[in-house]
Amino acid sequence: MKTQKLWGHAFDLQPEKIVIEFCAGRDVIGTLPADSFLLPYDVWGDRAHAIMLYKTGIITKADIKVILKGLGDVEKLSKIGKFVLDPTKEDVHTNIESFLIENYGVEHAGKLHTARSRNDQINLDTRLYLRDQARNFTMEIISLTQVLLKAAKKYEDYLIPGFTHTQHAMITTFGHLMLFFANQVLRDANRFTLWYNLHNYNPLGSIVSYGTSFPIDRHLTSKLMAFEGPELNSIDELTNRWEAEADLGYAITILMNHLSVIAQTLILFATPQFGMVKVSDLYSTGSSIMPQKKNPDSLEVIRGKAAVSAGYLQALLGIGKANFIGYNRDTQWTKYVITDLVRECILGPKIIEGVIETLTVNKEKMAFWCTQGFIGATSLLEQIAAVYHVPFRLAKMIVERGVKYSTDRNVVDFEAVKKALKELEIDIPITKKQVEDWQNPFEIIKFTKSFGGPSLAANKAAVILMDKEITKLTKWLKAKELQRTKADALLASEIATIRK
Amino acid sequence: MKTQKLWGHAFDLQPEKIVIEFCAGRDVIGTLPADSFLLPYDVWGDRAHAIMLYKTGIITKADIKVILKGLGDVEKLSKIGKFVLDPTKEDVHTNIESFLIENYGVEHAGKLHTARSRNDQINLDTRLYLRDQARNFTMEIISLTQVLLKAAKKYEDYLIPGFTHTQHAMITTFGHLMLFFANQVLRDANRFTLWYNLHNYNPLGSIVSYGTSFPIDRHLTSKLMAFEGPELNSIDELTNRWEAEADLGYAITILMNHLSVIAQTLILFATPQFGMVKVSDLYSTGSSIMPQKKNPDSLEVIRGKAAVSAGYLQALLGIGKANFIGYNRDTQWTKYVITDLVRECILGPKIIEGVIETLTVNKEKMAFWCTQGFIGATSLLEQIAAVYHVPFRLAKMIVERGVKYSTDRNVVDFEAVKKALKELEIDIPITKKQVEDWQNPFEIIKFTKSFGGPSLAANKAAVILMDKEITKLTKWLKAKELQRTKADALLASEIATIRK
Amino acid sequence: MKTQKLWGHAFDLQPEKIVIEFCAGRDVIGTLPADSFLLPYDVWGDRAHAIMLYKTGIITKADIKVILKGLGDVEKLSKIGKFVLDPTKEDVHTNIESFLIENYGVEHAGKLHTARSRNDQINLDTRLYLRDQARNFTMEIISLTQVLLKAAKKYEDYLIPGFTHTQHAMITTFGHLMLFFANQVLRDANRFTLWYNLHNYNPLGSIVSYGTSFPIDRHLTSKLMAFEGPELNSIDELTNRWEAEADLGYAITILMNHLSVIAQTLILFATPQFGMVKVSDLYSTGSSIMPQKKNPDSLEVIRGKAAVSAGYLQALLGIGKANFIGYNRDTQWTKYVITDLVRECILGPKIIEGVIETLTVNKEKMAFWCTQGFIGATSLLEQIAAVYHVPFRLAKMIVERGVKYSTDRNVVDFEAVKKALKELEIDIPITKKQVEDWQNPFEIIKFTKSFGGPSLAANKAAVILMDKEITKLTKWLKAKELQRTKADALLASEIATIRK
Amino acid sequence: MKTQKLWGHAFDLQPEKIVIEFCAGRDVIGTLPADSFLLPYDVWGDRAHAIMLYKTGIITKADIKVILKGLGDVEKLSKIGKFVLDPTKEDVHTNIESFLIENYGVEHAGKLHTARSRNDQINLDTRLYLRDQARNFTMEIISLTQVLLKAAKKYEDYLIPGFTHTQHAMITTFGHLMLFFANQVLRDANRFTLWYNLHNYNPLGSIVSYGTSFPIDRHLTSKLMAFEGPELNSIDELTNRWEAEADLGYAITILMNHLSVIAQTLILFATPQFGMVKVSDLYSTGSSIMPQKKNPDSLEVIRGKAAVSAGYLQALLGIGKANFIGYNRDTQWTKYVITDLVRECILGPKIIEGVIETLTVNKEKMAFWCTQGFIGATSLLEQIAAVYHVPFRLAKMIVERGVKYSTDRNVVDFEAVKKALKELEIDIPITKKQVEDWQNPFEIIKFTKSFGGPSLAANKAAVILMDKEITKLTKWLKAKELQRTKADALLASEIATIRK
Repeated sequence: MKTQKLWGHAFDLQPEKIVIEFCAGRDVIGTLPADSFLLPYDVWGDRAHAIMLYKTGIITKADIKVILKGLGDVEKLSKIGKFVLDPTKEDVHTNIESFLIENYGVEHAGKLHTARSRNDQINLDTRLYLRDQARNFTMEIISLTQVLLKAAKKYEDYLIPGFTHTQHAMITTFGHLMLFFANQVLRDANRFTLWYNLHNYNPLGSIVSYGTSFPIDRHLTSKLMAFEGPELNSIDELTNRWEAEADLGYAITILMNHLSVIAQTLILFATPQFGMVKVSDLYSTGSSIMPQKKNPDSLEVIRGKAAVSAGYLQALLGIGKANFIGYNRDTQWTKYVITDLVRECILGPKIIEGVIETLTVNKEKMAFWCTQGFIGATSLLEQIAAVYHVPFRLAKMIVERGVKYSTDRNVVDFEAVKKALKELEIDIPITKKQVEDWQNPFEIIKFTKSFGGPSLAANKAAVILMDKEITKLTKWLKAKELQRTKADALLASEIATIRK
Repeated sequence: MKTQKLWGHAFDLQPEKIVIEFCAGRDVIGTLPADSFLLPYDVWGDRAHAIMLYKTGIITKADIKVILKGLGDVEKLSKIGKFVLDPTKEDVHTNIESFLIENYGVEHAGKLHTARSRNDQINLDTRLYLRDQARNFTMEIISLTQVLLKAAKKYEDYLIPGFTHTQHAMITTFGHLMLFFANQVLRDANRFTLWYNLHNYNPLGSIVSYGTSFPIDRHLTSKLMAFEGPELNSIDELTNRWEAEADLGYAITILMNHLSVIAQTLILFATPQFGMVKVSDLYSTGSSIMPQKKNPDSLEVIRGKAAVSAGYLQALLGIGKANFIGYNRDTQWTKYVITDLVRECILGPKIIEGVIETLTVNKEKMAFWCTQGFIGATSLLEQIAAVYHVPFRLAKMIVERGVKYSTDRNVVDFEAVKKALKELEIDIPITKKQVEDWQNPFEIIKFTKSFGGPSLAANKAAVILMDKEITKLTKWLKAKELQRTKADALLASEIATIRK
Repeated sequence: MKTQKLWGHAFDLQPEKIVIEFCAGRDVIGTLPADSFLLPYDVWGDRAHAIMLYKTGIITKADIKVILKGLGDVEKLSKIGKFVLDPTKEDVHTNIESFLIENYGVEHAGKLHTARSRNDQINLDTRLYLRDQARNFTMEIISLTQVLLKAAKKYEDYLIPGFTHTQHAMITTFGHLMLFFANQVLRDANRFTLWYNLHNYNPLGSIVSYGTSFPIDRHLTSKLMAFEGPELNSIDELTNRWEAEADLGYAITILMNHLSVIAQTLILFATPQFGMVKVSDLYSTGSSIMPQKKNPDSLEVIRGKAAVSAGYLQALLGIGKANFIGYNRDTQWTKYVITDLVRECILGPKIIEGVIETLTVNKEKMAFWCTQGFIGATSLLEQIAAVYHVPFRLAKMIVERGVKYSTDRNVVDFEAVKKALKELEIDIPITKKQVEDWQNPFEIIKFTKSFGGPSLAANKAAVILMDKEITKLTKWLKAKELQRTKADALLASEIATIRK
Repeated sequence: MKTQKLWGHAFDLQPEKIVIEFCAGRDVIGTLPADSFLLPYDVWGDRAHAIMLYKTGIITKADIKVILKGLGDVEKLSKIGKFVLDPTKEDVHTNIESFLIENYGVEHAGKLHTARSRNDQINLDTRLYLRDQARNFTMEIISLTQVLLKAAKKYEDYLIPGFTHTQHAMITTFGHLMLFFANQVLRDANRFTLWYNLHNYNPLGSIVSYGTSFPIDRHLTSKLMAFEGPELNSIDELTNRWEAEADLGYAITILMNHLSVIAQTLILFATPQFGMVKVSDLYSTGSSIMPQKKNPDSLEVIRGKAAVSAGYLQALLGIGKANFIGYNRDTQWTKYVITDLVRECILGPKIIEGVIETLTVNKEKMAFWCTQGFIGATSLLEQIAAVYHVPFRLAKMIVERGVKYSTDRNVVDFEAVKKALKELEIDIPITKKQVEDWQNPFEIIKFTKSFGGPSLAANKAAVILMDKEITKLTKWLKAKELQRTKADALLASEIATIRK
C-alpha cells in the first residue's frame, strides 16, 4: 500500500505546489549554502571588475582574456550544477578565485583581486541580490493587487458586517474589504522602491573601507552593473553592511503584517461560526487523525512568518548597533538572516492571491450577519440627527437607550426609541417605518456615500485610483528592468570587444 | 553648604542643558500625559471639521459660530496652562467636547461630533503629530550634517588609522571619518521624507472605518490641514493604526543606529589608550566617588537609546500583527510608544552635533598611531603589484611573509621582504627606500585617490556632493513648511469669514 | 449639561476603576519621575549602609546619629508628599545626600557616601524594586489561578467545541479551557521565583565595580535588606545592570503572552457569531458614535501590552549586548524601560480575573456549536478502530470519505459510512445508532478519559494537582515576605540601639 | 598552484576546525532538513507509544512485533544514512509511518497512529530535542567556567585598569576579570536547569489537544522517555508550542549577551592601542588583501550572534502572541527558529574557552596602563578620608581639584593637593609620600579587600565558591543523564520482553 500524506480522502483537490513549498519547506528539505544564491552575482562582479582593471590599464589584455575565459567556465559549470562550492575554501569568492588560479595559473588569474577586497565583493553580491529581491517583491505586489481589485469589483455589493473591536460596527461590503487589502499592499510597494533610491549604488571600489592607490574607475563598474553610480563614502557601506538588508527586511515585515491582517480576517470569516467564506482545498491541509479537517494552513503560516519577519529584522538592527568604524565580522550574519527571510516570505503575496482567487464566498450568510447585533444603530442615529436636526450628541443618547431597551433583539425597536425620547424629553415625529428603514442594511449601504467608504460609487472611484497606482508601479518596474538589460548588453559588448 | 551634583570640581565647564535633558530626563522629571502633546492638533482638527460641516450644510451658521468660539477658548486657556486635562473624561477629545457642551450647551456644541468618531480624531491627531516630527528630525539632520561637513573640511589632513575588525587596516583621515558620519545620516533623511509620501493623507472622514451617510467633504478638510488629500480606504487607516508610527519609529531606529556608530567610535578614540580625541566637559559627566572622572555619558546614552529604539519599534510591529479588520484597542498603545520614542531621541542629532563642535582633536597622537601595527602593509603590497607587475595574489604572499618576519616591529622590514622574495622565488629589484616610502602614512594618503576614499581630492568632491544633498533637503523642508503655512492661512480666512 | 464619557447610556454598569487605569492610563495622566518609585528603597539602602559604616568603625556614633535623623526626615517628608525631587540635583541619590548635607552639615552627613558609589545605590534600589515586583506578580498569579480553578469546577460540564487551526476539532468543556488558562499561568510563577534565586543578592559594596579599601561588611548590609548574601563579583553586577531587569521583563512577557491567549479566546467567543460568552459591562467600553457598542477593550489592551512587553524586553536585551567591562551609562535606560513595563502590566492578571468572574456564559449556544462542523468525526473514527479492530489508518480513510459524502451536513451520515466501507472493501457490521451515538457530543465527552483531557474525572484530578501547586507558591511567597519582615525588624532594632 | 584561503602566510597557526564551523558555517555548507535532527526522537517516541498501546491492550502482540521490527529498520537505515526523508511525504512522522505501512502492511503498521496525532509527535520530538540541548549547554557552561577559574588563578596578580564608561576607573586584576566572566556564565546555567523544571513533562497523549477515548497510559510513556510525568493539560502544550522553545531561546540569548561582553572586552584589549592581549592565530582570520591582518573574528561573530539570538527570540515570542486555543500552524515555525539558533550558538562557549586558553597576555603593558589616567585618584581620596577623617564628600572635593591642577599628568601631584586643601580651607598633615603611595597601583590592590573585589584574598574566596557551584551543576547534569539512561534501559527491556 502506497501512502503519502496521512490525510486527504475528504478533499476534492490537493494543495498547490507553492502551498507545500510555503508551508512545509524546511521539514524535509534542507537549505542551500548561502553563497550559492550569490554565485551569479559574484561572476557578474568579477567580470565588471576585470573589465575595469583592463580599461584603466591596471591589468593587460592577456590577463583579462584569461580571466574572462575562466569566468565563462565558472558560469557554464555552475549552470549545469558542476561548480560545487568547496567548504575548505571559505566562501564563493575564494572558490572562484581559486578555481581560476588552479586552472589558469597565478600569472594572469592572480591579478583579478587587484584593487578590491572580499568585503568589496560580498557587499556587491548582496547588494545585487537584494536589488533583485526588491524588484521581485514589487512584481508580486502588482500581481496580488490586480487580483484584489478584480475581487473588489466582483464583490462590490456583497454586504458584510464591518467590525471594530471584533464586534459589529456598521455595514460594509466584501468588495470594500478587498479594496482595503489592496490599498495597504500598494503602500508597501513604496518601501521597495525607496530601497532602490537609497541603495542602488555601487559598493565595489571601497576596498577595505579606505580606498586604493590603483587608478580604478568606479563609474565604469557602476554602469556595467546597472547602478546609479558609486557609493559616496568608502567607510559607510562596510560599516553599515546591515542597512540595505534591514531596509529590505523592514519592507518585508510591514508587508507580512499586512498579509497577516488579510489572513486573520479570512481565518475568522471561515470558521463554522462566521461561515462567510470557505478556503479552497488547494490552500488547506488536513489532519493526521481528524477526518473532517480542512485547515487554512496557508493563512496561518502567513501569520507565523509575520512574527518571524519582525524577529529577523530585530537581528539585523541589533547587529547594526554601536559598531566601531570599518568592517566588523558581526555583519556577515546579515547575509544569512536576510536570505532566510526572503526565502520564507517571497511566496507570501502569491499565497494570498491564490486564496482570494479560489475563495468560496457565501453571500447569504454575509447578508444574515448584517441583520444581527444592532449593526444599524449608527445609521439610525445619523438619520435622526440629519432629518430631525437633533444635535448628534443627543441623538446618540436616544439611540443608546434605544439599544438598551431592545436587548435580546438585534435592531432597535420603535417602542424603545419612543421610550428613550420621552425620558430625554425630546420631541420628534419619528415613525416606525423610519426606525426600521434606517436600520435596514440595504438602505444603509445606499446612504453611506463618503469618499473611501463602502458605497458602490466610492468603490468604483477607488478602483480607478488604485489602478493608476498599479500602472505607475508597473512602469517603474519596467524602467528598472530595462536599466538592468542595458547593463547586461554593455557588459556583453565589452566582453565581445576584448575577445576579438 | 549648598550642593547640587556630587561631582564637578575637576571640570572647567558644566554640562549643557540639553545634555542633562537627554541624559537624565526621567529620573527626577515625570512625563506629561500623552494627550497633552495632541491638544493643539485636536483643536486644529475640530476647527477644520466644523468648518467642513458648515460649508456642506450639515450644521448651521449658529452652530459653527458657537463651536469656533468655544475652540478659541480652549486654545487660549491651553496656551496659559489653564486647560487641564481631566482624567475622568477619558481623553483629550472628550475633554474638549465636554468643555464645549458644558460651557456652550448641547444645542450647538453637541453637533461638533456629527459625522466623525474618536478614532477619526485620534488618528488625525497622531498623524499631524508624526508629520511634525518627520519634519523636525529632517531639520535636525540638516543641522548635524552641516556641522559634520565643516568638520570634514577642517580635519581633511588629520591622518588616522582606518580600522577593520577593530584592528589597524589602512590609513585614512579624520575628515574622511566625518564624511562617513555625514553620509549615513543624510541617507536617513530619506526615510523621513518617505514618511510624507506615504502618510501625509487625511484620515478624518473614515469615521469608525465604514464611512457615513452625511455628505462630508474630505477634500476640504484635507486642504485645511495641509494634507495631499484624503486616505483612499476607510478601513485601512484604522486597522493599520500602527504603520505610520512604525515608519517613523523605523526611521528613528536607523538614525539612532548611525548615531551609535559615531558614539562608539568617539568613545574608543577618547580612551586613555587611543588618546586621539577628548570629549568636552560640556558633554561629559563626573562620578559621585571617582575624582578624576570625565565620562562621555552623552555618547553612551546615544548607544543605549539606539537599543531602546529598536525595542520600541518591535512593540509597534508586534501590535500590528494579525489584527482583525477595523479598529482594535491594542493599537492605542502605539501612541505611548511613539511619543516616548520621539521624546527620547529627538535631541540625538543635536547631541552629536555639539560633541563634534566642541571636540578636542589630538593630531599628533593620531599621526603616531598611523605608524603602528603594519598599517602600511597593504600599500606596500599595492605598490609591489603596480610597480613590478607582480600578480596581486603573489604580491600578497610576499608581504604576508614580510609581516611574519618583522613581528614585534610595526612596519615591514626590507630584510623581511627580501627573505620572502627568496622563499617564493620571485625576483624584483625592490629597494629599501621603496619598502619604507610605500609604508609611510603621509605618502600613502597621497597615493590613495579612489572615489569615495580618504584623499584630499575625494574629500573635497564628496563635500560638494553632500552639500547638494543638503540643499535639496532644505528645499523640501521649506516646501513642506510652506504647505503648512498655507493651510493655516486658509483656515484663518475661513474662520474670519464665518465670524463676520 | 454635565458630560463625562461620550457613551454609556446603553450600559447597565460602568467600568471598574482598575479597567480605566489599565486601559486609558497615560492619555490624560502623566507618569511620575522614575526615581520617585525608588525613594523608599534608597532610604532603606542609606540606613543599612550607614549602620554598617558605623558598626565597622568607618564612621562615628555622632555621624550615624545625624545621618539617621536626616533620613528619618526624608522619610517623613516623603510620606506627606513634601520631599519633592529637585531636577537640578540629577537623581534621587543626590537629592537625598544634598538634603542631608544642606540640613545637617557636611561634617557628619558628608560621610554617608563613604565606601559606596551612586552605581552601588541605583543598582541596589532597582534590585529592591524588582524584588518587590517579583513578589507582586506572584501574588497576582496566585489570585488569578484561584479564580480560574473555581471557574474550572463551575463549568466542568459546559460542552464547547475544541478548536485547532481556528476550526472545529473535537469536543471539550469550558472547564477544561479554564484549566488550560490556569495551567499556563501557574507555570509563569516559576519565572518569578527563579528571579529570586538568581537575583536576591546584595549589589551594595561593589562601589564602582572594583571594590574599596574601607573595611566594609557586605554580609551585614545583606542581612539588613533581606538578601541571601552579597553578589560574588563586583564587576558583574554593574556591567550586567540589565539582566535582573531582563529576567523580570521576560517573565512578564511570557505571562502577557499567556494572558493574550485568554484574551483572544474570549474575544472570539464573545462575537455575535460565536455568541458563547458576554464580557461584563464592567470590563467593556462604548463608542463615541456607535450607540450599540460594548467592546471588550480590557481584553484587547491585554493583547496590545503583550506586544509592548516583548518590544521592551528587546530594548533591555539590546542594551546588554557587547558592552565593555564596568558600568556603561547605556544601562541606565533599563530603569525607565522596566518601570514602564511593570506599570503597564501589573494589573494584567487582575483584569483577566475580573473578566472571568463577571463573565456571562451561554451554555445553550456552546452546546449548539458542539453539534456543528463534523466535530464528532474523530470520535467516530476512534470507536470504529476500537470496537471493530480496524487499523487506525484505515478507519481514518473510512471516516474521511464519510465526511466527504456528508458535505453540507454537520455529522457523518450512516449512508456515507456505508458507501465509504464499500469503496474501501472493508466489511464491518456498524449500525446507524452507533454512527449517531459515536458523534453525539454528550457521549463523546464520556468516552474521553485520558489524563489531562476534558473529562469530568480528569478535570477533578487536575484541579487537585493545581491546588497543590498554588499552596506551594503561597508558602514560598509567605517565606519571602517573612524574610523581608525580619530584615525590617533587624534594621529597626539597630536604629533603636544607636538612638539610645 | 593550489590555493585554499586567500590569506595565511603571516600566520603561525591555522584556525581551529570549530572556528571555521562557528564563523563561516553557512556560506558554503547548506543546512540539513529540520526533521533530520528529530528522526531519532521520533523513533524513540514511536517505540514508547507502541509499547504503551500494547500494554494497555489497544493493539495486539502481533501488531507491536511488526511495529518494533519496522522501527528497528528505520533506525538502522538512518544510522547508515539510507533513511532519506522524502519531501513528498510532508514530514518525518509521515515518512516513518509510510515506511512501516509500505513495508509491513496497513494491517499492523496502520495501528501505530492509534490514539495520537502528529501534533503529539512533533511536540514530543522537539521537547526531547530541546531537553538534550538544555543539557548540552549546561555541559558547555561547566567546561567554560572551569577554564575561566583556572585563568582567574593564573592571572590573580596581573594588574589592569578597571573601566567605567570605557574610561579608567580604579585598579583591578585580569584574574578578577576572569572571575567576572565566570560568574555571569554560571548564573546562565540556572536558566537551562529551570528549563528542565518547567518542561521535562511528557506532551504525548494530548492528541489534538482534547484527549482520546482510548485507555492510554501517559505515565508509562513518561517513564519510557525519562519525563517527570505527563503534561497536566492537553490544550496547554499545543497552544503554547513556542514556550519551551522561547525559554531555551531566552537562556541562549542571555548567555550570548554575556559571551559578547567577554568578546567585546577582549577585542578592545587586543587593539594596538590597548595592546594588553593577543588573540591566538587559532582563533583569528586574515584578510584577502591586507597582509598584516589577524582579526579576532571568532569574538566578533560572538557579538553578531548575540544580536541574532535576541532577534530569533523575538520571533518565538511574536509567534506566541494572542493565539486562539488549540494548535495553530504558525507555531510550526518555532521549530526552524530554535534549531537554527541552537546550531548557531552551541559552539559559543567552546570558542570563548579556546580563546582564553590560547590567549597571550602582556603583563607589562597591563601594568603600564595602571599608571595612566589618574586611576589612583579614588584610592587617594579613600585614604584621605580614612586616615585623616575628612568627610568623604569633602575629601572628594580635595582630590577633584587635585586632578584639575594636575592635568596633563597621570597622577595627582602633591602640590595640587596642597593647593586644593588651601582653597577649601582644610588642614591635614598629608605628606608627599602618602600622596604618591596612595596612588601606586601595587599598593592600591593591597588596600582593596572588600568581598567580591579584586584582592588576592577575595579572588581565592570567589574561586572556592564558584567551584562549589560547578560541582553542584555537574551533579545535576549527571542526575539528568542517569535519568535518561534508566529510561533507555527500561525501553530496551520492554522491547526484549516483547521480542521473546
